[in-house]
Amino acid sequence: MSGTGQLIGAALARIRSSRPLVHQITNYVVMNDTANVTLQVGALPVMAHAKEEVREMVALAGALVLNPGTLEPSWVEAMLIAGQEAKRGGVPVVLDPVGAGATSYRTESNLHILAEVRPDIVRGNAGEIGALMGAGGQVRGVESVGEMADAPGVAKQAAASWGAVVAMTGARDLVTDGRRVLGVDNGDPWLTTMTGTGCSSTALVAAFAAVESDYVMAAAGALACLGYAAELAAPGAAGPGSFKVALHDAIYNMTAEKLSQGARVVEL
Amino acid sequence: MSGTGQLIGAALARIRSSRPLVHQITNYVVMNDTANVTLQVGALPVMAHAKEEVREMVALAGALVLNPGTLEPSWVEAMLIAGQEAKRGGVPVVLDPVGAGATSYRTESNLHILAEVRPDIVRGNAGEIGALMGAGGQVRGVESVGEMADAPGVAKQAAASWGAVVAMTGARDLVTDGRRVLGVDNGDPWLTTMTGTGCSSTALVAAFAAVESDYVMAAAGALACLGYAAELAAPGAAGPGSFKVALHDAIYNMTAEKLSQGARVVEL
Amino acid sequence: MSGTGQLIGAALARIRSSRPLVHQITNYVVMNDTANVTLQVGALPVMAHAKEEVREMVALAGALVLNPGTLEPSWVEAMLIAGQEAKRGGVPVVLDPVGAGATSYRTESNLHILAEVRPDIVRGNAGEIGALMGAGGQVRGVESVGEMADAPGVAKQAAASWGAVVAMTGARDLVTDGRRVLGVDNGDPWLTTMTGTGCSSTALVAAFAAVESDYVMAAAGALACLGYAAELAAPGAAGPGSFKVALHDAIYNMTAEKLSQGARVVEL
Repeated sequence: MSGTGQLIGAALARIRSSRPLVHQITNYVVMNDTANVTLQVGALPVMAHAKEEVREMVALAGALVLNPGTLEPSWVEAMLIAGQEAKRGGVPVVLDPVGAGATSYRTESNLHILAEVRPDIVRGNAGEIGALMGAGGQVRGVESVGEMADAPGVAKQAAASWGAVVAMTGARDLVTDGRRVLGVDNGDPWLTTMTGTGCSSTALVAAFAAVESDYVMAAAGALACLGYAAELAAPGAAGPGSFKVALHDAIYNMTAEKLSQGARVVEL
Repeated sequence: MSGTGQLIGAALARIRSSRPLVHQITNYVVMNDTANVTLQVGALPVMAHAKEEVREMVALAGALVLNPGTLEPSWVEAMLIAGQEAKRGGVPVVLDPVGAGATSYRTESNLHILAEVRPDIVRGNAGEIGALMGAGGQVRGVESVGEMADAPGVAKQAAASWGAVVAMTGARDLVTDGRRVLGVDNGDPWLTTMTGTGCSSTALVAAFAAVESDYVMAAAGALACLGYAAELAAPGAAGPGSFKVALHDAIYNMTAEKLSQGARVVEL
Repeated sequence: MSGTGQLIGAALARIRSSRPLVHQITNYVVMNDTANVTLQVGALPVMAHAKEEVREMVALAGALVLNPGTLEPSWVEAMLIAGQEAKRGGVPVVLDPVGAGATSYRTESNLHILAEVRPDIVRGNAGEIGALMGAGGQVRGVESVGEMADAPGVAKQAAASWGAVVAMTGARDLVTDGRRVLGVDNGDPWLTTMTGTGCSSTALVAAFAAVESDYVMAAAGALACLGYAAELAAPGAAGPGSFKVALHDAIYNMTAEKLSQGARVVEL
C-alpha cells in the first residue's frame, strides 16, 4: 500500500516545514514525554490549562489534545472550554480518554467531553473505547485488559456514534471513521514496558492532524510513525530505560522517506 | 541469610505474575519515574488524585502510595479519603513523608495523615522520620542532613508509636515493625545523584506490599530490589543521566533468582 | 577573558561546597528535569507551591525560581507570596516568564510578578523579554520566533526598566544589568531539540545566584555551564533522547577547572 505510505511521509514533511503548535491539556505523568515527542516529530508543544488562557492559546494552535489522565473538575472544565473554542475555530481536537472505565468519574467525564466538545479524533485502547461504548471493555487502572471479541466492529460503532475518527491502539492499531477501517501493524512490545506510550501516540496524532485534514490518514500516519520508530529503536534497547532513549532518538531521526517505506498500513 | 533472599525473590515473582495495581497519589516531580519503576518491577501504576474518584480507584488497587511531596490542601484531603478507604478495604497504605520537617505545614500534614489513616508502612529518610518523631532529624528541602545518633532506636520507636512498619532509608536501610529490625545493605552512591530515588523506592515498597503481607519483608524486599538494581547499573553509569537509564533497565531485568542471590538483608 | 572564566569556575566550586537549597515554583512539564540539573550542578532542589508553606520554605533557601510555565491563579498567588518573602529576606529571585506574549493572561501575570516581586534576575528568550517590554518579541506557544532587530538594546532597556539583571538566551546569550552587557557563546543546537532547556538554564542561574552576589556574573556563569556541558555532550548524541542523557552526565561531571577554561564569555 505504497500510496498510503507516501501520504504519511508527506504529512511528516509538512509537520517539519510548518511546525504547527500543538496545545496540550494533558496529565502530569506524561507532560515531559509528550512535549518531547511533539518536538521530535517537528511540531511545537505548549501546555496550558488555566481557563484564563486556554481560549486564546488554542486559537494559535494547529491542534488540541485533551487528555484527562490525572483529571479533576477544574481541568475538565478547562478541557471543555478549550475544546469548544477549538471546534469553533476549526482546530482539530484529539481526545485521549485515559483510564475511562476504571472509575465512574473517569467514564462520565470522558462521556461529557465527547458530548460537549465532539472531538475530531478519539485515541484510546480497546478497554477505554469499549467502556465508553458500554461494549464491555475492561480497564485496570489505565491499562486495557482482556480480549475484545470484535474490536473493528466496536471501533466502527464508536466512530459512527461519536462522529469522530476512532484510533484504537493495540497489537494492531485500528483507525476508522465508521466506514473505512485502516490497520496499522507497526510497533514493538517494548512500547508496553514504559508509561505514557499511549499519551505520546495521541500527541503525535494531534501533530499529524494539524497538517492532514483526512483524519483517518492523520491518525494512521502518527501511529505508523511511533510504531516504526519503536521498531528502529528496539535493537538498541536493553530495557525500558534505554528503549525510551532510543525511541526518542528514532522519532527525531524519522524522515518522510523512511516513514513512507516503513509504514505498514492496511485497508481492512 | 538465604531464607530471606528466597522470600524476597518469591515476592518479586508474585508481582510479575499477578500484576497488582498500585494507586499513587504522589508528587509532580516524580510521577513519570514512579510510574515507570512500577511497570518495570511488574506492577501496574495508576495516578489519580481527584476526590471524585479516589475511593473507587483504590478499591481496585493492590496497594496505595501517599506521597505529599508537592502537597496542597486539596491533595492532602484526597490522600485522607483514599487512605481511609484503603484501610477499610484491607489495601496496604504506604506513606512517604517527603520533606517532613522542612516546613511546619509539611510536618503537620504528614502527622495528620499518620493519625487519620494509620498507614501500614512509612518509608522516609532519617531526617523525615526523626522530624515526625520530634527526634531531631534535620531536613533541608527534601534531603536528610546530618547524622542521627541512634537511627535503629528512632525507627523502632516510630514503628511502635505509629503502629506501622518503618523503612528508614540511608547508606544502610532499616526496616522495623518496632520489634524485628532488618538492615538492607544493597545500594550505590549514584542513587543520591538523581531526584526521586526515595519516591521510587516507595512505589516499589507498595508493589511488594501488594503481594507480601509480611510488610517488614515487603519493604526490605523492595529496598533490596532497588539497591541491587543500582549495584548492577552502576558500572554502566558515566553520570546521573546514564545511571538512571541503566537503573531502569536493571529493575526491569531483575529476576527472582538474581534478587534472591543479590539481596543483602541482615537481622539486626 | 580568563578572569571571567576563573570567577565562573569559582562560583561552581562554591555551589558544590555549600549545596544551597534552590526553591522552585515551576511548571509541571520540567519539574523532574530542573530538579535533576539542580542536583547535578551541586545544589539541592525543593519544589513547593502551597501558600501554606512557601514563606517558610523560601526562608531556608539560597535562591528562588518563579516559573509560571503552566500557570493558574493559585500558583501565581503562591509565586507572589514566595517572591515577596524572598526579597524581604535577601534571597535572590529568578523569574522565567515562560510563554509571555503567547496569551494576555501569561503576559499580564508575568508583568504582575515583575511589578510586585521585583525579581533580581529575569531569564527568558528574546520573544518573551520583547513581549514583556512591548518591543515586538514574537512568541509561539513557548518558543521565541522571528528575529529581534536590536536584542542587546532591548535587553538593556528591560534591565533598566525592571531593576533586574536580564539574561536573554538565544544563539548568543546576553546578560545585562542595563549597563554592562556580557555575551555567552557556549551552547549547541541540540539544546533546541528537547523541552525544558530554558527552564533548566533558569534553575542553574538560581543555583549560581545563591553563591555569587554579582548577578550578571552568576547568570553568565550558569549559561556558560549549561552551554559548555551541551558542547561536551553533543558528540555523544544520536538524537534528543541520547543528548539529554549525555547533557545530564556532563553537567554532573563539569568541574571548576573545566568550566573556567571552556566558558566563552565576552564583554560587549
